[in-house]
Amino acid sequence: MNLDTIKTLSVKTGSKIMLLVMDGCGGLGSPSTGKTELETAKKPNLDQLAKKGVLGLSHPIGRGITPGSGPAHLGLFGYDPLQYLIGRGVLEALGIGFHMTSKNISARANFATMKDGIILDRRAGRIPTDKNIEIVGKLTNAIKEVDGVKIIFKNGKEHRFVVILEGEGLEDGLSETDPQKEGLKPHLVTAINPKAQKAADVLNKLMMKINETLKDEPRANTCLLRGIAKCPHIPSMSEVFKIKPACIANYPMYKGLATLVGMDLLPTGDTIESEFDTLEANFNNYDFFYLHIKKTDSYGEDGNFENKVKIIEEVDKQIPRLTKLGFDVIVVTGDHSTPSVLKGHSWHPNPFVLVSKYLIPDEAETFNERECRKGGLGQFLAVEAMPLMLGHAGKLEKYGA
Amino acid sequence: MNLDTIKTLSVKTGSKIMLLVMDGCGGLGSPSTGKTELETAKKPNLDQLAKKGVLGLSHPIGRGITPGSGPAHLGLFGYDPLQYLIGRGVLEALGIGFHMTSKNISARANFATMKDGIILDRRAGRIPTDKNIEIVGKLTNAIKEVDGVKIIFKNGKEHRFVVILEGEGLEDGLSETDPQKEGLKPHLVTAINPKAQKAADVLNKLMMKINETLKDEPRANTCLLRGIAKCPHIPSMSEVFKIKPACIANYPMYKGLATLVGMDLLPTGDTIESEFDTLEANFNNYDFFYLHIKKTDSYGEDGNFENKVKIIEEVDKQIPRLTKLGFDVIVVTGDHSTPSVLKGHSWHPNPFVLVSKYLIPDEAETFNERECRKGGLGQFLAVEAMPLMLGHAGKLEKYGA
Repeated sequence: MNLDTIKTLSVKTGSKIMLLVMDGCGGLGSPSTGKTELETAKKPNLDQLAKKGVLGLSHPIGRGITPGSGPAHLGLFGYDPLQYLIGRGVLEALGIGFHMTSKNISARANFATMKDGIILDRRAGRIPTDKNIEIVGKLTNAIKEVDGVKIIFKNGKEHRFVVILEGEGLEDGLSETDPQKEGLKPHLVTAINPKAQKAADVLNKLMMKINETLKDEPRANTCLLRGIAKCPHIPSMSEVFKIKPACIANYPMYKGLATLVGMDLLPTGDTIESEFDTLEANFNNYDFFYLHIKKTDSYGEDGNFENKVKIIEEVDKQIPRLTKLGFDVIVVTGDHSTPSVLKGHSWHPNPFVLVSKYLIPDEAETFNERECRKGGLGQFLAVEAMPLMLGHAGKLEKYGA
Repeated sequence: MNLDTIKTLSVKTGSKIMLLVMDGCGGLGSPSTGKTELETAKKPNLDQLAKKGVLGLSHPIGRGITPGSGPAHLGLFGYDPLQYLIGRGVLEALGIGFHMTSKNISARANFATMKDGIILDRRAGRIPTDKNIEIVGKLTNAIKEVDGVKIIFKNGKEHRFVVILEGEGLEDGLSETDPQKEGLKPHLVTAINPKAQKAADVLNKLMMKINETLKDEPRANTCLLRGIAKCPHIPSMSEVFKIKPACIANYPMYKGLATLVGMDLLPTGDTIESEFDTLEANFNNYDFFYLHIKKTDSYGEDGNFENKVKIIEEVDKQIPRLTKLGFDVIVVTGDHSTPSVLKGHSWHPNPFVLVSKYLIPDEAETFNERECRKGGLGQFLAVEAMPLMLGHAGKLEKYGA
């Protein structure tokens, strides 16, 4: 069901929804025990939710498809990730905490080494982050604007940084400068979309200024621009779903994604416990909470099965605080799976539990991948999670008469 | 997910995929035992795959829809059968082993009996195949071309044959000549698509020549043309999925479908065993194998429950040869169900088993319809089978960041 239709059905009510995302919580069996991280963790409180609620498996994009965090979260927030595309440059900007508006275009940039117009090293020897910060400082001091368009540089790690343009009349639909192979010249930026000509001109002039500024650097004497994009217009959750949503997250990219869909960002601490403190403190002010746990994914990416298990157990200890608050609907799920054995995101569907007064509990005694397979919600696309939550919270009117 | 998006994600790797299609393997319970063909067969090796792997049910087109072999296979090969339409004439040409190019238009033809311009019998009394061969020979000798367009006749069984045009500037979008009822005049071919006028003119002139050639035949003195179509452009599997695919099949139509999607055809013998010989002999040269077993479907169509069971058992004996080869992903499924009790294709979903290192096995002990219902893959569309296989084989990059 598309957003326009959902919008005609959604109504403002007093009910409250909790969406707890344990990033990458789904996994695969450990080679030694055959049990997944969720099957290994001692998590009596999450299991209690499984007993009271109904389980299922959600596919972030489609069967077999491994998602990045951007599209995976957009799906959970109710936006079709195949329709709402977020350029890599935008995600990078979100990732460093830059708030993109319709006046911005953002590019993911790599420092690179060039000689006689030929790219010798597309990553400038992976210069250390300290050096990156120093060079980005130099660029910031030397280049403030091009043709009246403000230029913003933000450092990332090693050779990575972000270039953001701010001005009127900037449209995207722009080619990249990265030749993808060493030994070739960098490309000029070209306007694939004719309306993007101004942005293309600004970026090409900017590249000349960058090259001039960096000409004496031994390694990072140029840069390559990729994923040059504007922030797509995404109708806000309050507009489409008639909710007042809040985000409790530690990491910039998730906060950025949340602002993209119109959530309020609630300041919170670095620990899982502090995120639940923030939830308690703000319970009365919102009717939709997205609380993001990052470390299940981080440890999955590191291949650290044990620590991923510990994070699940740490989250579990906070669950009683959450249930006490009196939500009408609680969902606990992941955005994508991050099996420790794969050390990365995967295509496996997400364990999903929904608790509400208005359901028939299934026979599951625990919250894990195998139980979710047998769950009463079956398997579904993540983009359907939002209507499921809204429906169970009484926030969707009848479709048709 | 559309093919363009899949194409941006797919990558060439060294991993290997096996797609074993037991045509029409799904069935219904025998009236005497209540067990299906798969439930009746002794198939320890297929059951072993079910223990190691994850099961599910795939719907060829959609719930309740009985597919022909063409769309059912296209779906399994990753092409949405509702988007990629193959005209009946093209399927007939593929079925007799004719390799269609962009210069060809093909029509399914029936010999018919006409008197005073009125069709008396739309099937010419179902003349025997020998007679068909004789008349097609007569047409081939008498008619070589029309307006510079080469004309090819190929006999089929009983009253059925195929007419293929070969030349420049032939487009499809053409009406049929079959009036669908006896006692009516045949229609002229008309160009529904204005670009198809040349083909329409050629076909109408051809019909006059055919009628002249056959005027002394007692029964087959004319023919009716249906499903007049060009072969659609289908992007190849190697282009879209970055694989090098091979087809091992005995029957022309399946080989034709495989060439449509760019598979190499591997010469093989008539027996099931010889198909597995071919697989072994070519294992090193490809990274995707489609092996087609026809007789599960044929015996299903005949209503021969026992022999369908025997074919499943015969395939089972070959499975150890397949597993020894060391595929990264093995899928065994059907293209559609062919329950012996229905003596034809049906709308029931296909039993599906996928084996890979990267999955959580389900509790199934055997490979059959009932176990597949409880399987960890749930129920899905056949068009999702290809992304599932590619994903499990590590051949799809992350969608978004």
